[in-house]
Amino acid sequence: MKLSKIISSIRPLNSKAMKKAENHQSQLTKPNKSLGTLESIAIRVSGITGHEIPSLGKKRIILCAADHGVTVEGVSAYPSTVTPMMVINFLKGGAAINALARQAGAEVQIVDVGVADNLPKHPKLISAKIRFGTRNLKEEPAMTSNECIQALKLGLKLADQAKKDKVKWVVLGEMGIGNTTSAAALMASLLPCAVKDVTGFGTGINHAQWMIKCRIISEALQRHSLNTLKPLQSLQCVGGLEIATLCGIVLGCAKNRIPLVVDGFITSAAFLVAYRITPKVRDFCFFSHRSEEPGHNKFFEILETEPLLNFKMRLGEGTGGTLALNILESALRVHKEMATFTSAKIPTKIKNPKTVRKSSTPS
Amino acid sequence: MKLSKIISSIRPLNSKAMKKAENHQSQLTKPNKSLGTLESIAIRVSGITGHEIPSLGKKRIILCAADHGVTVEGVSAYPSTVTPMMVINFLKGGAAINALARQAGAEVQIVDVGVADNLPKHPKLISAKIRFGTRNLKEEPAMTSNECIQALKLGLKLADQAKKDKVKWVVLGEMGIGNTTSAAALMASLLPCAVKDVTGFGTGINHAQWMIKCRIISEALQRHSLNTLKPLQSLQCVGGLEIATLCGIVLGCAKNRIPLVVDGFITSAAFLVAYRITPKVRDFCFFSHRSEEPGHNKFFEILETEPLLNFKMRLGEGTGGTLALNILESALRVHKEMATFTSAKIPTKIKNPKTVRKSSTPS
Repeated sequence: MKLSKIISSIRPLNSKAMKKAENHQSQLTKPNKSLGTLESIAIRVSGITGHEIPSLGKKRIILCAADHGVTVEGVSAYPSTVTPMMVINFLKGGAAINALARQAGAEVQIVDVGVADNLPKHPKLISAKIRFGTRNLKEEPAMTSNECIQALKLGLKLADQAKKDKVKWVVLGEMGIGNTTSAAALMASLLPCAVKDVTGFGTGINHAQWMIKCRIISEALQRHSLNTLKPLQSLQCVGGLEIATLCGIVLGCAKNRIPLVVDGFITSAAFLVAYRITPKVRDFCFFSHRSEEPGHNKFFEILETEPLLNFKMRLGEGTGGTLALNILESALRVHKEMATFTSAKIPTKIKNPKTVRKSSTPS
Repeated sequence: MKLSKIISSIRPLNSKAMKKAENHQSQLTKPNKSLGTLESIAIRVSGITGHEIPSLGKKRIILCAADHGVTVEGVSAYPSTVTPMMVINFLKGGAAINALARQAGAEVQIVDVGVADNLPKHPKLISAKIRFGTRNLKEEPAMTSNECIQALKLGLKLADQAKKDKVKWVVLGEMGIGNTTSAAALMASLLPCAVKDVTGFGTGINHAQWMIKCRIISEALQRHSLNTLKPLQSLQCVGGLEIATLCGIVLGCAKNRIPLVVDGFITSAAFLVAYRITPKVRDFCFFSHRSEEPGHNKFFEILETEPLLNFKMRLGEGTGGTLALNILESALRVHKEMATFTSAKIPTKIKNPKTVRKSSTPS
């Protein structure tokens, strides 16, 4: 994998298409800019796709699952055995993401990139296990350089597959007991910021466990001298297999000009690695929601942006991303389906309202 | 119409159903409370409907249209003639609300309660015109007491019809050039607050027009000695026919226990009138979004609540309400469709994580 080649293949937003989209918005039957954020979403998607009026179409949630060696340290409220069980729940359609995907009309692509157990074959499961969970990042790098690159490549391949399948939106999703520890370590090293500012209570640990979690992260960052200039090293030493795959998806979707929805804290960490590799990925990403993981606030603060939604969620799986997908689709729907002032024969704004319609006072 | 009878027929939320719903949420395959706002929405809908697991079903946007005599004063950037034109646009399916309703799978019920022009007959249009627009509230009360009550009754009837039709969600929508003036006057008298705090630039007026708008509202409030204790008088003197109808819908949906989605600034004013008539309506209403109309901030501040979305929209029609409808449906979908820990055979939280799975360290 030549990362530099991928980076240089990411082109900026198409400003001509955006100009056209903006002009189109001003002709729709509504006061100009009265749809606020919806208008800017549609215009940005025009810039991503190069189409004045982007088409709706296939939506895909790519849900990457993997386990984390660090869970043996007691950093999670659930045991690692929950990861494969939840994957089976996804395959059976019983998880939150399944219900939300059905509503949004999106498919859920489930990818085993490193679950620490053998999973049954299933037509909906992509088996791409690199190893049975990462190593314990407290003791050693979570992945070897080769494993990390394998996961990144997998992500790029998934993004290429999405392009081949004519997917119009990709939502990032993840499952992996222990992955808030990895994500916090990535945030701390790559935002960068203090460990305690990005370390939260995950699925529901207590204060003592939180202290352990902070200490483990701090020690790992120090041991490997991780910093914002070496995103791949952070990914390898404290990341996760699912996070590395998601990072590859971010790079690949930017290259393939597929609009991408970032979910919560974990997928934001994956985005952050890609962003530190090349800031060019940012224009292709929509941040869906503000997670209850406190570190997510820090992320938005340092990136100087705001997500679309704020529902105090902390589930992952792509649930916030899929909720936001409805809103993103709304933006494209109004952009595409609304009548213009001309087609509806409605006058635009009046110049001198005081002189108009005095005669037509209601009786 | 015996208002007191309607008020006394509004029963509080069903706490037994809410308790059951809360318990159900805790059994779903996710960390407890990890779906944040979605969980509390589902629980409240249980309280409204009395069902532990509320059913999904028909969604109806009731879009009430009417004109405002005060537009002759130049308080709007568009002439009143735009109101009937937009109604025709709604009927043809070319407006923002139509695109959003199609996406949400909701029907749009369009009600002419006071458009200042004759509208063609149309199967989708409910013709219930009380008069050709309100009187100019600068000169005289916008409606007679009788007209105001007629509009309220119409709203109650529409809510009864929704119940008969087994509608599961009602979204409030409106169209009426000039109606931010009415809404601001209602907000100022009923929140209550300073006129300038709730008077905005509507569809896009300039500063001089804004000054006129403020003065007209202040004078009307003074002339009729409007205050928070006399909501019906405010409604009659400075309200609008569509706002009075919407107020009736709020009361009627609360009586009929149909969850209701309040849209932007105008429908919030209609809600506020109902709320000052009886605070009992509040539990039945979901606030969808924060409008760009600055007065909406004051509304949320004084009511000490927050809407679901914040997209800098200021279009009305029920657009924000319909966007939020997707989220509200999501809340019910996860509540209804998710597997439980028992059905998915997944263990719940571990008691002492440090002792678990030491043996299953990834190789």
